[in-house]
Amino acid sequence: MSEPVRRQFDFLIASHHLTGVQRLNRLLDGSRGESSAEHSWHLALMATVLAGEHAPSVDLGRVLAMLVIHDLVEVEAGDVPIYDEQRRLDIVAVEQSAAVAMFGRLPQPQGQRMLELWQEFEAAETDDARFARAIDRLQPLLLHWASDGAAWAARGVTVAQERRLMAVIAQFWPSLGPVADALVTDAHRRGLLAD
Amino acid sequence: MSEPVRRQFDFLIASHHLTGVQRLNRLLDGSRGESSAEHSWHLALMATVLAGEHAPSVDLGRVLAMLVIHDLVEVEAGDVPIYDEQRRLDIVAVEQSAAVAMFGRLPQPQGQRMLELWQEFEAAETDDARFARAIDRLQPLLLHWASDGAAWAARGVTVAQERRLMAVIAQFWPSLGPVADALVTDAHRRGLLAD
Repeated sequence: MSEPVRRQFDFLIASHHLTGVQRLNRLLDGSRGESSAEHSWHLALMATVLAGEHAPSVDLGRVLAMLVIHDLVEVEAGDVPIYDEQRRLDIVAVEQSAAVAMFGRLPQPQGQRMLELWQEFEAAETDDARFARAIDRLQPLLLHWASDGAAWAARGVTVAQERRLMAVIAQFWPSLGPVADALVTDAHRRGLLAD
Repeated sequence: MSEPVRRQFDFLIASHHLTGVQRLNRLLDGSRGESSAEHSWHLALMATVLAGEHAPSVDLGRVLAMLVIHDLVEVEAGDVPIYDEQRRLDIVAVEQSAAVAMFGRLPQPQGQRMLELWQEFEAAETDDARFARAIDRLQPLLLHWASDGAAWAARGVTVAQERRLMAVIAQFWPSLGPVADALVTDAHRRGLLAD
């Protein structure tokens, strides 16, 4: 096995530990927490389903690649729910050095290119990154809504807090704003989000 | 929420149950079985890493979309390990009707297009599908190799059986054949695959 292939396999095996990173929400059957690997897969599926209508001009290959790699830093840094707003700020530097280490496992120049793709997602300046970032916020909202708000209830999330945190969806990708809003409004109407 | 959006969300929520479908192999830490959702994510990551060198001419967006949807039929049909060769043949018709039902949840013509993408993957005739199919076989081999052959030992898989089942990797995508072969040879040398 050549040295570049060995490094690619080392990266892929280290990455697989993303299956062991637990997120806030449970699976829809309640049996265990959703892993960050499953979240990443569901984001890619969601982007595939919504891109045609909402984002026909994005490069779907780049968007899906970003979504597939965006949480790999959590293998080292863990998942911090968006509701822990201070910890979200505190962890930025940890995630950046985790990204350098994780993508540094790959042969060069591939490692550098993958790091730059992750940085592009984080910076949220290009269309590809902004659509991907909007999907990353919309997916947990859809799951919380579909699971009768269990994760919201566990943390006492209010409708005002949720609306504020979800406002970035419309900032990242305007046409997804009304979709997110409809979910929040319906969740509030059904009592899943506190006043 | 418009009717097409409601149907897309219904599809995405039904799809999330792929997180509850257990595969043969365990996570690398041994804590539980890998879900088909996690497998699908890892395939997409693997395709992203290997495409540049091995398949620069494929449409990465189509390949990743195929990999993300290819196991959705398992929400209804369950996962059948490749080592159960008779059951793999028996389940083909079940998977086909499961695909019609699952993608039929989407608004038209999107549902039909997604069904056709799944059928393209299954037919393994286009380059995009053949690269995706090769990755789908290579990923479990890499995981079994990385976890000291636990899944092989549990089923008493021989090196001859593994070599025969993995021969399709080279048929689907010739340049990945030697890579697969190196893993099988190393696993045999280390006693992870029986004579």
